[in-house]
This record gives sequence, C-alpha cells and structure tokens, in this order.
Amino acid sequence: MSKTMLAVVKAEPKAGAEIRDVAVPQFGPTDVLVHVRVASVCGTDLHIYNWDSWAQRRIHPPLIPGHEFCGEVAAVGREVTSVKPGDFVSAEMHVACGKCFQCRTGDAHICQNVTIIGVDSDGAFAEYVRIPESNIWKIDPSIPADYASVLDPLGNAVHAVLAGEIAGRTVAITGCGPIGLFAIAVARALGASTVFAIEVNAHRRKIAQQMKADHVLDPATQDVKSIVLDQTGGVGADVVLEMAGHPDAIRTAFDIVRRGGRISLLGLTSKPVSLNFSEDIIFKGITIQGINGRRMYQTWYQMQALLKSGKLDLTPVITDRMPMRDFSRGMERLTTGEASKILLYPNGVK
Amino acid sequence: MSKTMLAVVKAEPKAGAEIRDVAVPQFGPTDVLVHVRVASVCGTDLHIYNWDSWAQRRIHPPLIPGHEFCGEVAAVGREVTSVKPGDFVSAEMHVACGKCFQCRTGDAHICQNVTIIGVDSDGAFAEYVRIPESNIWKIDPSIPADYASVLDPLGNAVHAVLAGEIAGRTVAITGCGPIGLFAIAVARALGASTVFAIEVNAHRRKIAQQMKADHVLDPATQDVKSIVLDQTGGVGADVVLEMAGHPDAIRTAFDIVRRGGRISLLGLTSKPVSLNFSEDIIFKGITIQGINGRRMYQTWYQMQALLKSGKLDLTPVITDRMPMRDFSRGMERLTTGEASKILLYPNGVK
Amino acid sequence: MSKTMLAVVKAEPKAGAEIRDVAVPQFGPTDVLVHVRVASVCGTDLHIYNWDSWAQRRIHPPLIPGHEFCGEVAAVGREVTSVKPGDFVSAEMHVACGKCFQCRTGDAHICQNVTIIGVDSDGAFAEYVRIPESNIWKIDPSIPADYASVLDPLGNAVHAVLAGEIAGRTVAITGCGPIGLFAIAVARALGASTVFAIEVNAHRRKIAQQMKADHVLDPATQDVKSIVLDQTGGVGADVVLEMAGHPDAIRTAFDIVRRGGRISLLGLTSKPVSLNFSEDIIFKGITIQGINGRRMYQTWYQMQALLKSGKLDLTPVITDRMPMRDFSRGMERLTTGEASKILLYPNGVK
Amino acid sequence: MSKTMLAVVKAEPKAGAEIRDVAVPQFGPTDVLVHVRVASVCGTDLHIYNWDSWAQRRIHPPLIPGHEFCGEVAAVGREVTSVKPGDFVSAEMHVACGKCFQCRTGDAHICQNVTIIGVDSDGAFAEYVRIPESNIWKIDPSIPADYASVLDPLGNAVHAVLAGEIAGRTVAITGCGPIGLFAIAVARALGASTVFAIEVNAHRRKIAQQMKADHVLDPATQDVKSIVLDQTGGVGADVVLEMAGHPDAIRTAFDIVRRGGRISLLGLTSKPVSLNFSEDIIFKGITIQGINGRRMYQTWYQMQALLKSGKLDLTPVITDRMPMRDFSRGMERLTTGEASKILLYPNGVK
Repeated sequence: MSKTMLAVVKAEPKAGAEIRDVAVPQFGPTDVLVHVRVASVCGTDLHIYNWDSWAQRRIHPPLIPGHEFCGEVAAVGREVTSVKPGDFVSAEMHVACGKCFQCRTGDAHICQNVTIIGVDSDGAFAEYVRIPESNIWKIDPSIPADYASVLDPLGNAVHAVLAGEIAGRTVAITGCGPIGLFAIAVARALGASTVFAIEVNAHRRKIAQQMKADHVLDPATQDVKSIVLDQTGGVGADVVLEMAGHPDAIRTAFDIVRRGGRISLLGLTSKPVSLNFSEDIIFKGITIQGINGRRMYQTWYQMQALLKSGKLDLTPVITDRMPMRDFSRGMERLTTGEASKILLYPNGVK
Repeated sequence: MSKTMLAVVKAEPKAGAEIRDVAVPQFGPTDVLVHVRVASVCGTDLHIYNWDSWAQRRIHPPLIPGHEFCGEVAAVGREVTSVKPGDFVSAEMHVACGKCFQCRTGDAHICQNVTIIGVDSDGAFAEYVRIPESNIWKIDPSIPADYASVLDPLGNAVHAVLAGEIAGRTVAITGCGPIGLFAIAVARALGASTVFAIEVNAHRRKIAQQMKADHVLDPATQDVKSIVLDQTGGVGADVVLEMAGHPDAIRTAFDIVRRGGRISLLGLTSKPVSLNFSEDIIFKGITIQGINGRRMYQTWYQMQALLKSGKLDLTPVITDRMPMRDFSRGMERLTTGEASKILLYPNGVK
Repeated sequence: MSKTMLAVVKAEPKAGAEIRDVAVPQFGPTDVLVHVRVASVCGTDLHIYNWDSWAQRRIHPPLIPGHEFCGEVAAVGREVTSVKPGDFVSAEMHVACGKCFQCRTGDAHICQNVTIIGVDSDGAFAEYVRIPESNIWKIDPSIPADYASVLDPLGNAVHAVLAGEIAGRTVAITGCGPIGLFAIAVARALGASTVFAIEVNAHRRKIAQQMKADHVLDPATQDVKSIVLDQTGGVGADVVLEMAGHPDAIRTAFDIVRRGGRISLLGLTSKPVSLNFSEDIIFKGITIQGINGRRMYQTWYQMQALLKSGKLDLTPVITDRMPMRDFSRGMERLTTGEASKILLYPNGVK
Repeated sequence: MSKTMLAVVKAEPKAGAEIRDVAVPQFGPTDVLVHVRVASVCGTDLHIYNWDSWAQRRIHPPLIPGHEFCGEVAAVGREVTSVKPGDFVSAEMHVACGKCFQCRTGDAHICQNVTIIGVDSDGAFAEYVRIPESNIWKIDPSIPADYASVLDPLGNAVHAVLAGEIAGRTVAITGCGPIGLFAIAVARALGASTVFAIEVNAHRRKIAQQMKADHVLDPATQDVKSIVLDQTGGVGADVVLEMAGHPDAIRTAFDIVRRGGRISLLGLTSKPVSLNFSEDIIFKGITIQGINGRRMYQTWYQMQALLKSGKLDLTPVITDRMPMRDFSRGMERLTTGEASKILLYPNGVK
C-alpha cells in the first residue's frame, strides 16, 4: 500500500478545493482503513466548497470532505473483529460519543457530542478513509457499489419515511433533491398508497416521474393544496416529508397535511419560518418531527433489507459519474440545478 | 323488488344446508339492505355445514350463513346518510356494541358483546342481506367485485401483518389457507424483505409460489428451522404470522422467531398447546399477539388503499367460482383440500 | 319537572350575558337530559362574554354557553340504555360525526365535523342540559361533584401529559392556567420525576406551589433555560407541555426541551410564532404535537381511574364558588387574573 | 489497597459455597474496579448454592457469584473517562457484545452473546469486583446504599411495568418475590389505579400489604378471578405482571387479563405450560411479552429518576441484613420462605 493518496482537500478558509497527494491516514487499534471505491457528493459538500456562512462557522481547514462512500477494507486495527481486509463496506459517518443520555437510550443519531467524518475530521473524498469499527457497515455483496455509495442520504430517506406509519398512507414529499427522490422509492416500496412529489425545479420533477411518484406537482404553476385534497377525498395527506428546507415548501406542508397527520422535517433552512400554532398544529392535532441523520443502526438494517430484496430502483437519481479528480466540475454541475446525485471515483469511473 | 329471495339456509341442527326461497329481510331506520353480487366461503361456513362441536355450541338454526360478500345497496333506512341505493359496498360483519370499554377505547374488534352477521344472525349467502349503517363499507368502484367479496379475510391478513413493524423485516407465515396466502401478498406490498411460506398441503404451497413468497417450505420434508436460520444470517425471522392453528405449526413459530421478534397468532385450534415459557418466550424477549377480526376501521382504510393502488394480486387464491345454488358442491371442494377461496354468485357466475 | 329553568344566555351579538328563565330543553330518543349540579367556567366562556373577535366569528346568539359540568340524569330518550334517571354524569361536549376518516380510525377528538355543546349549541350554564347518549360519561359516585365538574379541562391535561412517555421523565409546563395547574398534578401522579412550572402571574405561581411542582419559575425575573439545564444535568427537559399560548412561552418551550424530547402544544394563540426549523426542531430531533380536546374515550377512562384512586388533589385550582346567578361577577374575577377555576351552582353553593 | 480480599467462592461442582481470601481482580484499560459496599442476594444465587440442574449446566466453578451490588470506584483503567475513584456506582451485569443485530438495534438486553458477571465470570460477593466501563452506572449520591444495591431486580420490575401502558391501569401481579414486591411500588408510583398482589406465601403477602397493594389475594383460599372481575367492573385486569413462574400463577394470569390487555412474563419456570390458544389469546386479542433483564439503559434512567424523586419506598422488601461472611446463613433464611431481600456487607453491617 502506498504511503500517499489522492484526495480532495479544503486547504484554506475560502471558496474552492484542491486535488492533492496527501498521506494515507494512520489508524489505531479500533479503527478500520477503507479503500474508497465510490464516493458521492452531498449538498453539504457544496456549502463547504462555496465557503458559505455555515461552512465558515463549522469547518476548520485543512479538511478532506466527503461523507458518502463505499469501498473495501484495506487494513484493520488489532482489536477489530467484525470486518477483515477485502470486506465490502460503507459507514455511518456520525460518530456518537456512546456515553451521553441520548447514546445510552437508543438515540445515538442525536448524540450531544457527535462529530461527523468529512465535516469535523477527514472524510471520504480520497483513496483511503479511516473509520472507527463501531461505525463500519458491512454491505451485502449483492448490492451494487453505486447504490452502496449513497447509503447515507438513502438512510435519511428511510429514517424519514419510517418515522411513523406508512403502510397504505398517502404521502406528500415537498422538495425533490436526492433525499426527496429516494423517499419516493422508499415510500412506494413500503406500501404508501399514493405519493405526491412537489418540486419547482423541472429537472428534478422529471426524475420524480422516473421514480414513479403518482403525482408530480409544480407549486409555481399548480394549486398543490387543491390537488392533494381532491386526490385524498378532501382529507389531506396522511404524511408529509418536508425535504426542501424552503419556507414556501414548509408552508405547503402544513396546508396539505390532514388532521392527525404527521410532518417529518428534514430540509434545512436558515430562514425563520412563521406559523399560526392554533390553526396549523393544535386544532389539526398533527405531529411534527425533526429528522436528523439515520437511526443507529435500525435504519441501516432496514435499508439493507430493502436493497437486498431489490425493492428500490435508485438509478434515475444518479445523474453524473466522474473521476474524483474532476471534483470542481461536479460542484459546477450541482450549481446548475441539473445534476442530482454525483458519484466520484478515486480510481476512475468503472 | 321481489319479496322473496334465494338463500342458503341452515335449517336444522344437523349436517348439511338447503337452498330455499325465503323472505327478503326487513330493515329498520338505521339499516342498509344490500343486494349481494358475490359472496365468499370461509372455513367457518364449513364448520357450520358439517355441524361440528363448535357449530353445535354456537349456531342456532334456522340461519342463513355467509359473512364475506360485496354488492349494491338496494334500499336504506330513513336515518341512513352515508350510502344510497346503487352504491357498491361490503361490510364489517362483527357488530360491536359501541358501549363497552373496548368499543369506547378504539378496540371495537374485541368488543365484549360482539355479534357476527352470518353466525349469530342471517348473513350473506342470499340475494339480500341486512347490515347496520355503522358497519357498511363503501368500496371504491375501481376495485374488482371478486376482490371486494373477500375483504373480511383479506382484512384479517392486513390486521395481522400490520400488528407490528413489517418494513424491511423477514416474515414467516405458518399455514397457507386463504388468509395466510393473502398475508404473503400484503407483507410483500408493505416492504417485507423476505417471506417464508410454510405449509404441508401441496395445493396450497403451489398457490404460495404464485403469490411470490420468497421461500415456500414443506415442514413434512424440510428442516424449516435450519432453512430460516440460514436465510436470516442465523438470527431467525423478525415476524411470524401463525395462520395454521395446528400445534406443530405453532411449535415451528416459536422455534424460528428471533430474539425480540413477534408472533401474531390468528389460526384457531381447539387443541391445547404446551410451551416452555422460559426458553420460548422470556429469554428470547419476544412478543405474542392474539389477532382477532379486523381493526374497525383502520384495517379497512389500509386495505382499501392497498387494493386501490393495485399493490395486491389476489387472483391465485380464488380457485373456484360457482352459482350460489351449488353451495354443497363448494363444501365438497373445500373438503378435498384442493380449493382455496370459493366465490358464490346468487345470480349466476358473471 | 318545571317547564322553565334558569340559564345564562348570550342573547345579543355584543359583550355581556343575561340571567334568564328559558324553556327546559326538549330531547329526542337518543338524548339524555341532565340536571346540572355544578358547572365550571372556561377561558372560552370569557371570550364569549367579552365578544372578542374569535367569538364574533364563531358564536351565533342566542346561546347558553358552558361546557364543563356534572349533574344527575333527569330523563332519558326511549332508546337510551346506558344511563337512567338519577345517575351521576358528566359529558364529552365535543360531538363527533362518527362517519369521517378521523372518527372511524380512533381519532374522534379531531373529527372533521365536530360541534361543541356550549359553543355551537346550548350548553351547561343552566339548570338542565341536553346531551346525546353517546357523549354521556357516567361518573363513579366516589368522585366529588366539584372535581366532576372540571373533567373537560382535566381531560385536556391528561391527554397532553399522556401524549407520550411520562414515567420517570422531567416535565416543564409553560403557562399555569387551570389546565397547566391540573397538568402538574397529573404529571406527578403518573411518575414524572421533576415538574417545572413556568408562569408570569404571581397568583398562578402560588397555586403551582400548592400543586407541588418541584420548581416554580417566573420567566420575567428568572433565567428559566439555565435553571432547567442545571436541574437536568445539562440535558434539558424530556417533555414540555405548552399551555400558555404566548409566543414568549412557546420560545421558552423550544429552548428548554432536550434533544429527542417532545413538546405538546395546547395553549392557543392568535399571534404568529417564528421558529428556526433547523436549530429548533431538526438538529434536536424533537417531536411536536398539537393537543386538541380529549381522546374519546381513552382519556376519560384514565382520568376516572386517577380520580377514583385518589391520586389527584385539585383543590388549590378551585379558587371561587358562586351561585350561577352571579355569572357576571365570575367574569370579573377571571379578568383580574386572581381567580383560577370558578365553579357555578345553578341551585346555590352547597 | 490490599492484594487479597474476602469473597464468597463456589469452589466445587457441588452444593454449598466457601468464604475465602482470594486475589483482588486485575483490570484492563477499559475496566473499573469497584469496592463493594453492599451486595444483595438473588434467587439465582440460591440455585448456584444448591447446585441444582440449572446450575450444573450453566456454572463453571470456581466462581465468585453475586450480581446485585453497589460500591465506590477503587481504581480505573487508563482509557476510562466516565467515572473516577470515589464515585458511587452500581452496574448492569449483563455484558452485551455490542455487535449483534439486537445490540445494534436498541435491544442489547437480549444480546445473542450476552455474558453475566456473577454467573459466567466473577461477581460481587467480594470486597472488589471488576466491571467494564460500558456497564458502570453512576448513582446519584442522594440514593441510599441499600436501595442502590438492588438496582438489578428493581430494574426488572421497572422494565416489566413499563413494557406497555400503565397510567390509570389496573395491574395484577402474580407472585410476590422481591421483583413482584418492587413492581407493586413501581406500578403505584407510575399511576396504576389499582394493584392486585396475588401470592400463596403468607410472609410475602404481608410485605405486599406493606408495599400498599390495593388488594392482596391468596389464590389458595380466595377466588382470584371473581375478585379481580368484581373490582374491575367485570372487565378484567388491564395488565398482568407474571412473576411467579409457576403454572398455576400463569393460568391465573390468562384468566384475569382483560380483552386487549397485556401479560408481561418474567417468572421463570422449567415446567411446560399448556394453553388453549384460541380462548386464552386469540379471541381476547391480548399481547404477551417476555421480559428479560433491563433495557440498557432506558430502564436505568427511569429507575434512577424514580428513586431520586423519592417515589419508591422499598424498605419492607429488605428483610435481612448480615455480614457477607454469613452468606450460608442467608441461604438458609431464603430457603425458609420468610426472607425476601437479603443484603450482604463485605465490611460488616453499617
């Protein structure tokens, strides 16, 4: 194994990123070193690249970003027992402390002291990445590598869809970025009766069609509320998955959810949102949930079961594949709004 | 409307049944009179026909049996508001009292004072049947009449499958009578990752194959426990739906359920079953549920949503169709073990 | 039985109310006529009295207000079977339609077509009130009449407390009107480990002390967030019951709830509330619930069980008792902020 | 610190135990060495002492038994961060593997590879005991040491009581050994409306009275089913906690549970139990749960919260206190059926 490797490096506290040769990570007795086969780009990576206000507060260069990937185990620390070199793996990149109240009561996904690999420490946009054994997820070899590289955002979708009842329910998804698009497939696979996909961007609406949403709606030109009420016998949607993070979409979510329904919020927004608590929440008796990360590791088992049984077709969401060297071009593609999920290959596109 | 109608009548406290002309039922202000289009035969009807010990205790002839059907509303009492003549309907045949603790706390399906139409009062093996408005279920016209006639047993299956988590779970079904067969389709539609169907009867196993169970097993010749453990990475089945009502199948259910899994019991048995509580239940930390009827009316909404969205193919289960006049021939077919679901048509097979 | 009775009447669409002799209500075959022993005043009654903007939209005079009461059955319609004259009763005043999706799936408390006795039709501030049998609640005779007159708001508190886990949890209650005060007693009786009562009004804080809240805090002079964090080992409150309906209190609720905690919203507000969805909800992974009415009739059974077993001391909340004739004086007392729960006696204070 | 310590040692594969001087345990980098202040005797310890068939299969002498205790941290391994010498602690003695399906999905209490300190490795009937940091539970200093020594069985009771709804519920406890007695206190503290304690042993019934069960029943002389039905308005008990492990008590549990109720099984039995599945489980629509250990670590947090807020009076259950040297006398006391919880003090009774 070489001592250096190719990596995307956020070297300076300013916009941009570099492709560099850096040292392969060292690893301790409970760590696993993974040879990255495919990495996937998240909106977070674009924030880091653009060095926006969130990135300026959170990121401490130099940093190798990247928190969605799969690969083979290259080496393991001496206390590692659950995987061995050659195993096909991905990882939960939220590293929980294991000692706080949330960690000790089954809610490690909202650990008080969480750190994120690829955000707070070096990540997967490189030939090798170091992962603690506790966070390694061994992947069934029948799952394609491209799918295996997007388990992080797919897990967000699975977590959101399964945060309440879904069988035989009508589901509206506001916002069709990659996680929203994945959620269409997941909701369908788990027996949602009707899926509404609501999205202003025409590229994304087209993919939502390919993901087989029952109704793909453009809130800029269509009366979403009327259509949802019409299609649900005047009742409203049982479940709304808010994945846009835009105040207009959030407003729509509250307008279309039925009495007693649930809104699962995943889309982040820095803008304040104003609600009429009496009319929007209390009289309707609804439930609102903040969805963060993926349940460790219930979501992972559920996701793997769905993938292994062939119930999810994710191909329409993967719009771009490129060598990792072309990272900056990927950032440009993402900025156009034309790309959805972009896969990076450290060793070239296979 | 004629004043008399064709009906299957259990006239005497002995084996058999007659086809007769009887008076069309009278109905009160809150009743609905339904013109039966299709009725479906349940194992209970065979017990009544054969006049076994259960029937001798429960049934008071004369009785028109039949509790699975669909049809059109023929007439309504003066206080009825939710349906009108011509509407396509079925009904929940468990008539709950509405006043007991269970009824007032959302558990009407286990009402203390329940009576069953077709068991305790005249049922649907006739041209007309009288149903209280509260129990009428209006059917979306897009649902085929044959499917609409089996909502009662399909609802049993939906109730059992949804009595706990199912998404991404491995499910074993012991016993592939009609409800077990329906449960295969329901579990698959709701995202079960792997479905094991376990059945000694070769006719039923063949239908289980057609319902697309992942593994169809014959406990008489195969080592069910080993196979389930092999296919679940040594963990065992997350969910077991016990629909055989035979001590051997029940034993299998406890053997194959994983630690922390659930067993939902639906198959009735008059034989005592012996368990080792420590090993079978406590150390494994499992949950066991008695499944009775269908939730009123959550199950009905979920079932309708699944049917309307085309997620269930029930055709392999419907093995026989015949005019209602041929009821006795239907009983013979059922006795052979070759038939699964038999549909009866009061006005001839369409 | 006299043909006329004393009643509080909102006769005109303007502020105020009159004490009048009016006809005793007529009742149908499924109705129960109740002789009111004690009625209790709700904040809603003050809105009606003051003829504020909400009342102007919702209320159609003439109306007898009043929706909290107990009394004896005076007469029953011919189809009534569950109570008889002389029985001690109260009632759920939300009359659900029984036919909408919510009613048929166990959520009648958020019925699409609900009407409220005392708001939409004549209520309990009178010697007699007419109630449909379905909504009558028979009261165990061991429960004192004063307590029996406040089951409606006590039920709000029980519903809110039991809308999620409470055993061994830290609970913060923002707003100590009668429902907030009741919630202190309920939370304690159900094993909450620590109860914080947060209230700006000194009279109410004094009662909160008498209800044995562990910490009674004045947000005008104390740093509520710091105190709650200190007392919970830095974690925050497991459960927040928001019963103030004021934007400042709602802000506090989001500030003090722990990661993964729940906020149950009951306090109504006509003012828009602004939130940072990312920080307030999503990253913390919290659950927010709108609490409306009382579950029909789970809440009623739970409440009766708590009262019957003597686990709730409600006496500090009942600050005023007066003859029903003095209704206007009651309205004045409520306006001062000194009174909490005011009981009215149609036949004089016993 | 001395290099040797006093310990109870099961030295040979036969009945009895010895008091010996043995080496103080060595500890690794992630271990905590605890100086035992109080240890408590479990029925399991009597099985080991008597060398019954279970013990012969499970126990490999030499072994120091004991799995209920509290004490002060004497020393910590170099990687330990959550406690320091002098801290007051107890421990969860079920050591979970952390890598199996159950461990990774929040069910570590039913880990596939669990080992138990005091059963599979040296335990707490000694001056010092070695515990992995992951299993250490830091105790609030306000909790008395005697209570802190019984967190293991108290946790069984808390786990069982909280395995379903308890607020405002009627609860029957069959079997009043220490865990059953603790469950009386826990159920009361969490708002159970009525607690029935059912026990054949007069000594235990007396303690059940002291624990303030509402009804203490002797199944040998009283008609338990009739009494429970009478006291619950003919409905039956909402919850039955089966803690006897005797077929007669299990039979009673099924007889008295209401339709839709739950039976939580904790009492172990080596005898087969025979049930009529149709009548006992399916028609009644009940739920049966196997209760094993304590949830890691939800139960511990809940238990600590209840103890810290002073809601549990456990003193009647602690019948005997003696120096650890008198272990054999403790075994005799337990055999008489007169003792309930026996506390052992390595350094003499304080």
